[in-house]
Amino acid sequence: MSPSAQNGAFLSFEGIDGSGKSTQSRLLAQSLRDLGHPVTLTREPGGSAGAEEIRALVLQGDPDRWSAETELLLFTAARRDHLEKTIRPALARGEIVITDRFADSTRMYQGLRGNLASTVNSLHDLMIGTEPDLTFLVDLDPETGLSRALGRNGTEQRFEDMGLAVQKQMRAGFLALAALHPRIRIIDGARDPATIAAEILSLTLAQLS
Amino acid sequence: MSPSAQNGAFLSFEGIDGSGKSTQSRLLAQSLRDLGHPVTLTREPGGSAGAEEIRALVLQGDPDRWSAETELLLFTAARRDHLEKTIRPALARGEIVITDRFADSTRMYQGLRGNLASTVNSLHDLMIGTEPDLTFLVDLDPETGLSRALGRNGTEQRFEDMGLAVQKQMRAGFLALAALHPRIRIIDGARDPATIAAEILSLTLAQLS
Repeated sequence: MSPSAQNGAFLSFEGIDGSGKSTQSRLLAQSLRDLGHPVTLTREPGGSAGAEEIRALVLQGDPDRWSAETELLLFTAARRDHLEKTIRPALARGEIVITDRFADSTRMYQGLRGNLASTVNSLHDLMIGTEPDLTFLVDLDPETGLSRALGRNGTEQRFEDMGLAVQKQMRAGFLALAALHPRIRIIDGARDPATIAAEILSLTLAQLS
Repeated sequence: MSPSAQNGAFLSFEGIDGSGKSTQSRLLAQSLRDLGHPVTLTREPGGSAGAEEIRALVLQGDPDRWSAETELLLFTAARRDHLEKTIRPALARGEIVITDRFADSTRMYQGLRGNLASTVNSLHDLMIGTEPDLTFLVDLDPETGLSRALGRNGTEQRFEDMGLAVQKQMRAGFLALAALHPRIRIIDGARDPATIAAEILSLTLAQLS
């Protein structure tokens, strides 16, 4: 395709902490811009002013003060705002939207927390509806992620907080989602970043063409 | 029934501003307490600490900054918190719960605002589920409500903000809901408060027996 064709596309990155998905989403945005595509790079939770405020409300105070169901409603309200204020306007301008996390993270986290998998899906269908055209699941053994993270500031604590067992559950949850949704492509995150980035760019250009 | 039987019941009051529903909900709570029933009197929006915080988030800033759908999700999150933290625990203790507004207000307001009636109902079924055992719709001609409110501090402005035409739409919306749901009893709010209170108490005691 020609860069001037202005084909909008909605792409998401998913994966456990330390998988490299944030780095890869930035690399993809840069490569697409270098090719002349207009790109909006965004992230969840957050991604719009209203969504950031809702996020702050969820995170402040006692972590157990919201039930799994109330938290799910608040995150869905934030996603709806993100969709309306950031994602849809960018797609309407013909841009490529890349988001670091979207609904699959909720399916996995909230599904694990409250055993709410079917509620999460029904609520998504009712109030969000939109799915990415393509989702890159950057897949990595949590032990590899941890050993990588040991050199990185601030990340170790997060890993320790979550626990390796929980990270393994999350990885399995994401892989189970990938088995259900053909739009989710599993990307081997154990390779060097440039190799991973090249594969992701190639899959994206195929999607755009 | 005996006051010591601890039959829990969930009652709601609905109606347009100035209909007298808040006064009537207080009078009913007092009469039931006088008869020895434990009563929790609560209200929406709000009714729990978390719900109040969500309410503040919705109300602060530009009134148009949330779409009808995002606002609906935030109000539903607040209702879920109210239900979990205030209503269900009181019912579990065998109390009579009286709430000044509940889901019918959302059905009517959000249904009018965004033409979201079927979404409101689906979201309620998915995330709230609970309905009152009995709902008192205190029905009043908005013009009568306005002439009453003229002597009352702070109420005139609210009436003027909403406009008489909108109040008439809301009254019609509530009456349409009453036609759909047998639990909603239409109470003629044009009579004197003591007469209205006696009818509501009688209907409540019949429900409890």
